[in-house]
Amino acid sequence: MATGNRAVVFHGTEDMRVDTVDYPKLEMPNGQKAPHGVILKIVATNICGSDLHIYRGSFPVPEGMLMGHEMTGQVVEVGPDVEFLSEGDLVSVPFNVACGRCRNCRARHTEVCETTNPDASCAAYGFNLGNWDGGQAEYMFVPYADFQLLRFPDKDQAMEKIRDLALLSDILPTAFHGLMEAGAKPGSTVYIAGAGPVGRCGAAAARLLGASCIIVGDYDQKRLDLVKRNGCETIDLSQDVPLTDQIEAILGEPMVDSAVDYVGSEAHGIGSDADKLMPQAAINQVMDATRAGGATGVIGVYGPDPLAPTQEGKEGTFPLDFGKVWIKSPRISAGQAPIMHYNRELMMAILWDRMPYLSDMLNTKVISLDEAPDAYVKFNEGSDEKYIIDPHGMIKH
Amino acid sequence: MATGNRAVVFHGTEDMRVDTVDYPKLEMPNGQKAPHGVILKIVATNICGSDLHIYRGSFPVPEGMLMGHEMTGQVVEVGPDVEFLSEGDLVSVPFNVACGRCRNCRARHTEVCETTNPDASCAAYGFNLGNWDGGQAEYMFVPYADFQLLRFPDKDQAMEKIRDLALLSDILPTAFHGLMEAGAKPGSTVYIAGAGPVGRCGAAAARLLGASCIIVGDYDQKRLDLVKRNGCETIDLSQDVPLTDQIEAILGEPMVDSAVDYVGSEAHGIGSDADKLMPQAAINQVMDATRAGGATGVIGVYGPDPLAPTQEGKEGTFPLDFGKVWIKSPRISAGQAPIMHYNRELMMAILWDRMPYLSDMLNTKVISLDEAPDAYVKFNEGSDEKYIIDPHGMIKH
Amino acid sequence: MATGNRAVVFHGTEDMRVDTVDYPKLEMPNGQKAPHGVILKIVATNICGSDLHIYRGSFPVPEGMLMGHEMTGQVVEVGPDVEFLSEGDLVSVPFNVACGRCRNCRARHTEVCETTNPDASCAAYGFNLGNWDGGQAEYMFVPYADFQLLRFPDKDQAMEKIRDLALLSDILPTAFHGLMEAGAKPGSTVYIAGAGPVGRCGAAAARLLGASCIIVGDYDQKRLDLVKRNGCETIDLSQDVPLTDQIEAILGEPMVDSAVDYVGSEAHGIGSDADKLMPQAAINQVMDATRAGGATGVIGVYGPDPLAPTQEGKEGTFPLDFGKVWIKSPRISAGQAPIMHYNRELMMAILWDRMPYLSDMLNTKVISLDEAPDAYVKFNEGSDEKYIIDPHGMIKH
Amino acid sequence: MATGNRAVVFHGTEDMRVDTVDYPKLEMPNGQKAPHGVILKIVATNICGSDLHIYRGSFPVPEGMLMGHEMTGQVVEVGPDVEFLSEGDLVSVPFNVACGRCRNCRARHTEVCETTNPDASCAAYGFNLGNWDGGQAEYMFVPYADFQLLRFPDKDQAMEKIRDLALLSDILPTAFHGLMEAGAKPGSTVYIAGAGPVGRCGAAAARLLGASCIIVGDYDQKRLDLVKRNGCETIDLSQDVPLTDQIEAILGEPMVDSAVDYVGSEAHGIGSDADKLMPQAAINQVMDATRAGGATGVIGVYGPDPLAPTQEGKEGTFPLDFGKVWIKSPRISAGQAPIMHYNRELMMAILWDRMPYLSDMLNTKVISLDEAPDAYVKFNEGSDEKYIIDPHGMIKH
Repeated sequence: MATGNRAVVFHGTEDMRVDTVDYPKLEMPNGQKAPHGVILKIVATNICGSDLHIYRGSFPVPEGMLMGHEMTGQVVEVGPDVEFLSEGDLVSVPFNVACGRCRNCRARHTEVCETTNPDASCAAYGFNLGNWDGGQAEYMFVPYADFQLLRFPDKDQAMEKIRDLALLSDILPTAFHGLMEAGAKPGSTVYIAGAGPVGRCGAAAARLLGASCIIVGDYDQKRLDLVKRNGCETIDLSQDVPLTDQIEAILGEPMVDSAVDYVGSEAHGIGSDADKLMPQAAINQVMDATRAGGATGVIGVYGPDPLAPTQEGKEGTFPLDFGKVWIKSPRISAGQAPIMHYNRELMMAILWDRMPYLSDMLNTKVISLDEAPDAYVKFNEGSDEKYIIDPHGMIKH
Repeated sequence: MATGNRAVVFHGTEDMRVDTVDYPKLEMPNGQKAPHGVILKIVATNICGSDLHIYRGSFPVPEGMLMGHEMTGQVVEVGPDVEFLSEGDLVSVPFNVACGRCRNCRARHTEVCETTNPDASCAAYGFNLGNWDGGQAEYMFVPYADFQLLRFPDKDQAMEKIRDLALLSDILPTAFHGLMEAGAKPGSTVYIAGAGPVGRCGAAAARLLGASCIIVGDYDQKRLDLVKRNGCETIDLSQDVPLTDQIEAILGEPMVDSAVDYVGSEAHGIGSDADKLMPQAAINQVMDATRAGGATGVIGVYGPDPLAPTQEGKEGTFPLDFGKVWIKSPRISAGQAPIMHYNRELMMAILWDRMPYLSDMLNTKVISLDEAPDAYVKFNEGSDEKYIIDPHGMIKH
Repeated sequence: MATGNRAVVFHGTEDMRVDTVDYPKLEMPNGQKAPHGVILKIVATNICGSDLHIYRGSFPVPEGMLMGHEMTGQVVEVGPDVEFLSEGDLVSVPFNVACGRCRNCRARHTEVCETTNPDASCAAYGFNLGNWDGGQAEYMFVPYADFQLLRFPDKDQAMEKIRDLALLSDILPTAFHGLMEAGAKPGSTVYIAGAGPVGRCGAAAARLLGASCIIVGDYDQKRLDLVKRNGCETIDLSQDVPLTDQIEAILGEPMVDSAVDYVGSEAHGIGSDADKLMPQAAINQVMDATRAGGATGVIGVYGPDPLAPTQEGKEGTFPLDFGKVWIKSPRISAGQAPIMHYNRELMMAILWDRMPYLSDMLNTKVISLDEAPDAYVKFNEGSDEKYIIDPHGMIKH
Repeated sequence: MATGNRAVVFHGTEDMRVDTVDYPKLEMPNGQKAPHGVILKIVATNICGSDLHIYRGSFPVPEGMLMGHEMTGQVVEVGPDVEFLSEGDLVSVPFNVACGRCRNCRARHTEVCETTNPDASCAAYGFNLGNWDGGQAEYMFVPYADFQLLRFPDKDQAMEKIRDLALLSDILPTAFHGLMEAGAKPGSTVYIAGAGPVGRCGAAAARLLGASCIIVGDYDQKRLDLVKRNGCETIDLSQDVPLTDQIEAILGEPMVDSAVDYVGSEAHGIGSDADKLMPQAAINQVMDATRAGGATGVIGVYGPDPLAPTQEGKEGTFPLDFGKVWIKSPRISAGQAPIMHYNRELMMAILWDRMPYLSDMLNTKVISLDEAPDAYVKFNEGSDEKYIIDPHGMIKH
């Protein structure tokens, strides 16, 4: 058994390093025993756009924090109150830490578990949300394992599709949740703000669920090309044309049934404002792009942000065009996705080959743990790749 | 048959008068024939809080416009394509004008009918939303009558309960819609922002649907007393105590399952800000008061408002605490209520005596058409009465 | 600490006795440790209509089985993996045994937990469904306590309302579930087949949720009187009049929006068939009574029944009028209720006094453990009382 | 303008002929004027499996009735109360006749319109359900046209895809409805009973909505091959193996999330019973194949059938295994599909090329009106083709 644990550690803004830390224990962040927990040997652990919030300093975390919240791993140790998992099981870890015992977890709202983060209404690994160690590492501890973990039915089959299955920990269900909150269904017209990895998962999920016209808006042509060659329409937001005009040119109508913001408060404006940080830009765009009677999802993260350009933004207040859209009967849903709501079904869709376009849209790249710090730099510069760290060299190339 | 029609007419800000205008025809605002329409003799026609927006000038309408959108009436003339209504039928008019033929109406979104207002996504009588004459009058024209009108099954029974049934045209279904959008169900805890007539209908509707703890916030003690003596808790917003602290004092928890804004952009602050017009205050309060995993309804009207204190407000942009609530997974629904979604069932609840507290909570007062201009003045000054105009003296006193 | 445990034990058809058995341990039926479990001191434990299936022999169980599945109790011992409950907590036990860890429990379908009964898709205390000891006893073991148990927020307040709160373990949420499955909502018209305790809870729940016309059908006038004096309409099924005619006489229409079968396969016919056991009678009646576009709930138990009058009935096959109702677009939902879906909200409704009619409708009678065998006899003879056993004399009379 | 109208006419069991009848008028079946109606020139009109019920005599209709309920056509005449359709528009006709004005239509339950068939709760063209002339003809009358008809946005584009769009009138939305009622969603496992045209549409719709494992059961290898080569699994029901065993061999589990009966009461048994007419076989199979917590849709038609083998079957009573499935918490939905609920979105999916497999799965064959009687014979013999009649020779071959 391993005694140490190599992990990606936050050392300060734009300073990620691979350190050797202690091997994890079946213990809660406060030191209490966790008989319900397991130790995982990590098979795949991705770098996420929200890791960049930490990297850039817009989401402050303590120095020394272990990064990572998108993990797939193999069970190597089970606590005495784990009944339905065994050593060797290959599992996906939902990024929300959830107890399965509180009112919200019982109601499937695992994204706002009431117990796993005493300071707020939600918890996650590798954030400052409950002091849970992240999993960009060789090993990690996961509590409430019977409740939380999604076991793949066949390990060999799963390893064949691991690049796709690795997305089940966060961004594929997260993207899917945005579409569900925006009311997307077979035949819907969809606008997707942002062609980063989550937005591209949104495009893939929209295809899976049978959306008709899927339009993705971004500034980066390489990212847009990934979705364009896989059955989606694209809008170049650096063009100086109103969004609804661009939608109308594609769809014949200026607004869609379902629009989702996959960007959040690090958004920029359209056209001549494309270089300007405008924290409210993306959400106002998706509200604008949603037809009367449609719905809007907000997956992009909003919060008090020390790097925001205004005092209001630092406090989490944004100037929203709510009065302009009120007459359209807006329905707006936001927040973290309850991964467990969706990951099993999305796993089934992957295992039965219903998303053949997923890998190409995501443009996943498998890297070693040591390559992770560089990957943060490249991802922050706008790479069109989705990085999957393979700490033990278990993924076929 | 009558030849003229006495009606409440807008002559300018704070200037409503009763004029004699032409008797209505089976004609659309653009002059086309309306074989699907009927003429109603008005039995009850209420003054609504949103009529005050017009009265005060925050919702501009043309001089000479006929006021009123909360009508109950008797069919006196039917067009050649009306099959299921007959002369003498007593009916409730949903305030939304809806064709029953467009995509949104087919999908029960009559609040955003695509055809009855060529300028916007919704239409209403007695507003500048499609040029439909209002019904604070002796007679009115209603198009698409088979689709739109709710017939009371027994005229005599209905006249006995007419003060309650008169609320079906707008404020009772509107208030109920707010609760539905906020996810309220039996046992829910509910916060209601505003004890005006719609907020009081919200309190009554929350009782009907079996909510547990129903808390109403307002500044006006007389209005609060109406709900307090009918099974609700109250919060005096002029006290300098944070809203969540006041909720916690009542409920034992600082936030509720479902919170509804029945105020809109004419809101004021809390405590020392109670005298200050703060257009974003009510919506921020209800988002603040909603628990993680709960939902928020916004029935209060937001829109570009020429009387708003800021340029942003004039354009319909509001500084919302969206970042502060994003972590709670907010679900926010806003806009006009699709009255037809609810009015039939609420009628049944009234007819079977399931809302015995309704009249007392609303404190309805029946007045003549000539008393209407004065009632606008009193309502604007904060009266705790709900005015029902009885143009033909048909309602028992 | 107690060493023995007095409990109601099944000794054979129509033979219930109070025996002294072993004090419960934190152990699963198969003898494994249950660190997630607790021991409860029982405060209230009701006799249920489905206990009569065992009593009569239509649901076979092993001799020596401990009876009871409707328990309210006080925590007296907690396992090492119980985090959110403490000694002294007063809790309601959902009658479904549910692990909180399987696919169905994660999806809120605790009524079909996949792990707590290896022989079937559901488990319950005091049945032959997973070998769980029942709780008509002084003490009992409950597994997965953090997940399963509903804690009352204030013990003294709860003891004041214990007769109502005792119904949260099964029949009130069960009855409510039937209405939800039948699509009941504010203003709905409702038909309730059966005025036994669950049917009467259905009537009470229909009132809570704001149903308009609530019609209850039964043969027993005493039972019907309990609902009639609390705001419901009644139908005497021993009259020789078709059900839809009787509904029409009350409602003005022959069918209701929502109909629920609270009877099951021990049903009798209507009128001249009132004395005849007709296992399919109740479900055919509720399908008949549901309007096109409405929905039907089947809470009454159907299953292979050794006492059924036909071979088909013994095997669980029933002659249903499916072809007669297909044209009405029937929606039929059946099965056990997932208690945890509803018990928290119904507790809140009780605690905030929203069901003042509940006690009178149910006609609850508190008895000692020693009186339980007699109560089985009386209940089987059609008593209009709902028996609550108080094993420790803790309930005020 | 045409003066006569050539149409497929029912002359008796197994006797369909093409006759010349009167050109249609803007008139209701009872002779009243229909200002809301249009006359269509038929472009495509399919033969449906339910037409075979009439052909065989299991659904009795009057001699001389015009057949057909799956029409696509061009508007050639509009009534004076038609506002949103013009001559030349190409439209799909939902097979349900629906007024858009009654309670059920207002609630989107157009499949149980309360006014268009005075004898029952639903109406359809070309059946004995309201006396509406069918549309296997050159021309037809459609009432309530603004409400009912789905206009294709671009006529040329639509004519390119007319073989797929012709399915929007009935079988594609009908099949989709079955899946919705069975709770199917992305990732669901699905069992489809029957590989006739509707079952094959069900398979196609399951692919569209992202189902994972889609299993189709039938006896006819040619029909099964059509779905097998388009991404579905198949079960040969003539094999003597229990259905759940066959499902388990494919899926690894014996039951699916969603099972839909696309067969109805003309079903046969499994294996050695494959040659035996067993009216209850299909519905019992789909209930058996549905997992606990799943749901079952019943699209196949059940009703009183004069050809049924038993007296009970003639009256519409079927021996169902309800007791065997009650413990699985069954949810069963049946009846005609409300086409308007789905046709617009499915049209969008077709227009945006999201169902490239549809034509091949359906194996559509375009025929002339004169070939229709022969096509009835072949279809009745189990052809694997779906016949589209092209009365004016407008469809490209």
